[in-house]
Amino acid sequence: MSTAATFDFAPLLPAGLPAPAARWTGLAKYSFVGGNNDPDQVPVEGLVDAVNAVLRREGKTLATYGLASGPQGYRPLREFLTAKLKRDAGIACAADDIMIVSGSLQALDLVNATLLARGDTVLVEQETYQGAINRLTKLGVKTVGIPLDDQGMRMDALAAVLADHKARGITPKYIYTIPTVQNPTGTIMPESRRTEMLDLSQQYGVPIFEDDCYADLIWNGERPPAIYAMSPNGNVIHVGSFSKSIAPALRVGFIVAPWAMMSRMLSLKTDAGSGALEQMVLAEYCAPHFATHVPKLTRGLRAKLDTLMDALGEQFGTAAEFEDPKGGIFLWVKLPDNVDTLKLYQAALAAGVAINPGPEWSTDKAYAGSRLRLCFASPSHEQIREGVAVLADVCRKEFGVPERSANVERAKT
Amino acid sequence: MSTAATFDFAPLLPAGLPAPAARWTGLAKYSFVGGNNDPDQVPVEGLVDAVNAVLRREGKTLATYGLASGPQGYRPLREFLTAKLKRDAGIACAADDIMIVSGSLQALDLVNATLLARGDTVLVEQETYQGAINRLTKLGVKTVGIPLDDQGMRMDALAAVLADHKARGITPKYIYTIPTVQNPTGTIMPESRRTEMLDLSQQYGVPIFEDDCYADLIWNGERPPAIYAMSPNGNVIHVGSFSKSIAPALRVGFIVAPWAMMSRMLSLKTDAGSGALEQMVLAEYCAPHFATHVPKLTRGLRAKLDTLMDALGEQFGTAAEFEDPKGGIFLWVKLPDNVDTLKLYQAALAAGVAINPGPEWSTDKAYAGSRLRLCFASPSHEQIREGVAVLADVCRKEFGVPERSANVERAKT
Repeated sequence: MSTAATFDFAPLLPAGLPAPAARWTGLAKYSFVGGNNDPDQVPVEGLVDAVNAVLRREGKTLATYGLASGPQGYRPLREFLTAKLKRDAGIACAADDIMIVSGSLQALDLVNATLLARGDTVLVEQETYQGAINRLTKLGVKTVGIPLDDQGMRMDALAAVLADHKARGITPKYIYTIPTVQNPTGTIMPESRRTEMLDLSQQYGVPIFEDDCYADLIWNGERPPAIYAMSPNGNVIHVGSFSKSIAPALRVGFIVAPWAMMSRMLSLKTDAGSGALEQMVLAEYCAPHFATHVPKLTRGLRAKLDTLMDALGEQFGTAAEFEDPKGGIFLWVKLPDNVDTLKLYQAALAAGVAINPGPEWSTDKAYAGSRLRLCFASPSHEQIREGVAVLADVCRKEFGVPERSANVERAKT
Repeated sequence: MSTAATFDFAPLLPAGLPAPAARWTGLAKYSFVGGNNDPDQVPVEGLVDAVNAVLRREGKTLATYGLASGPQGYRPLREFLTAKLKRDAGIACAADDIMIVSGSLQALDLVNATLLARGDTVLVEQETYQGAINRLTKLGVKTVGIPLDDQGMRMDALAAVLADHKARGITPKYIYTIPTVQNPTGTIMPESRRTEMLDLSQQYGVPIFEDDCYADLIWNGERPPAIYAMSPNGNVIHVGSFSKSIAPALRVGFIVAPWAMMSRMLSLKTDAGSGALEQMVLAEYCAPHFATHVPKLTRGLRAKLDTLMDALGEQFGTAAEFEDPKGGIFLWVKLPDNVDTLKLYQAALAAGVAINPGPEWSTDKAYAGSRLRLCFASPSHEQIREGVAVLADVCRKEFGVPERSANVERAKT
């Protein structure tokens, strides 16, 4: 049998498939990528208590798809969310306005499947989540980036792009925004600008797709109402996640949407429900503990950000420019213009440091060419300091900046 | 604000969307549909012990996507599967040949996305899983049904269809089979026929897609090796699930496939991993307990099947024909030719009884028109008896069969 030729799948593959994956070789020694969180902040004991209680009370329900809560997900979790969204984001919604999904990535997929066809146009923040850009590219959708400033998406630019598209007879399918702790820039859009965006959405008949998945992680805990909460006419689809506030590996997110959208997304969600055990545990844990867990988490994250910004200052000096983000788990960094972060990414990875090169997080590849995203929640304080030092060494060897080694000086102190 | 017109999503929807979902109205009083299992057989205490142990030991790892096991899923679960698949199905594979997915439905989606384009042809068993048929229809793929007998897919018919397609210059993309407890007919394909299928696959260059998701639920525990195990040349993609053996709401399945397919499916699995907590709990529970849990489960299922067959005999007499299935959670029933089970489905649902009408589980709508699938794992013995009595009453009122009411006679005994 071992002499038989191996079956060849290649002739059967359709055109347009993405490249095959490489074998996984493990995480980088210094990993500044991905939405991973602080392992020491996973509320393990609280989750253990929750799972004991909920399984002993309702474990038999696991025998039924969807826990007998229907296709929108475990009802107690949706009920927790109605209270949480009211308190934190000003959203008044019912459990039936919410669908639980397998992470906010499934939310992106469902919204896209409901609204997009090849050749469509959507508007996004010029710097935005790589997973959103990649999905749109794969769908053959034209992605138009709207520039950002320190208050998020610029409304003058949005108005101009909408007017230009209308003049050309094009209705973009949605405006995708991460208004509350923008990814990757870390800004929070003020309420007045949210009102402007709602007005433009209404004026041009283009709905808003609001991705609020980092909104729990704000240093001072203060945020404007969600755009969804401010909408007078149901033109907003709102998405959130437990990946950032509790644990990313759980894969639980949610969509709040008008029934006109919800009913379409439900008919496209053919996975027989998202993971039930995780929904049960989250509902049981979050109802009593979420409001006290999150401030503790953000204090730890803020401390790691301080370590990262200190290390960058020490190792890169003025060669690394950044704004202090309002929350979140990432820092958006500008290096000197001659640095190509796609090349830096390769060289750094070879040295054990994983970074997100800017061009993968922007629709403007030239603008983002010397920028990078550094995620700071997962590595320890020590790994952050060591990793930034290694990154500075690699950058110096490859691009001549930063000019002098801070390592040497630091060793003397 | 309440006077504003509601935003209209309709002009933005692309062509070809499925119909919107209706609001969920709960489960039927007597539910004989879906892969739901026996609530009393969920090993709640074992799962509680497992989750306590694994969370206390590894809970911090939930802070990292994929539990630091990479995109193919939690390594201890894949290691359990290598041992289980070797013991039960004769499959010799390594943990790296396995990908954990969010239920076998995600396996169908990934295999389809890797191999299929609109206009392609696939071969399936004439009676087969509704979810597979629906997915293929939605993808615009031509689904050719191969007739079954009491040993599963007929190889003479498969050979003829393959020859016919070759003569027309068409290479079907795969042969989809549920060889071990066929859904819905409950047969097990003998080893000799599996060998024939492998030979035809090799001869025509058409891979086999083996869905073994019911294979754990065999009354006498005896099964032939998986087709995957018998393949000399890697022409088989094998899929399994924990939905039937442990609990469907967990949403954990797996794919065993050659790297040529695996590497393509991995690049299409963009969900940042399947639910980690569920993978952890399953690995922890199954390694010591799977082999003793399953025979206990199947004894209970067999008892429910006996109740169902008794109730059908009592209520329908000779009007209901069926074979005794070799395992599983469903019975495939033939009613008299004048019964239209699509109409029966509607009338029965109105009376509180949910059934699967045959045409939804077959590529031959006429053949299946008077057939139906009854799932027996979830309802209690009492619900089975009551539900079948209600179904017989509805069927008699709608179609005049069964001719006399067994209820009356039963009441006297």
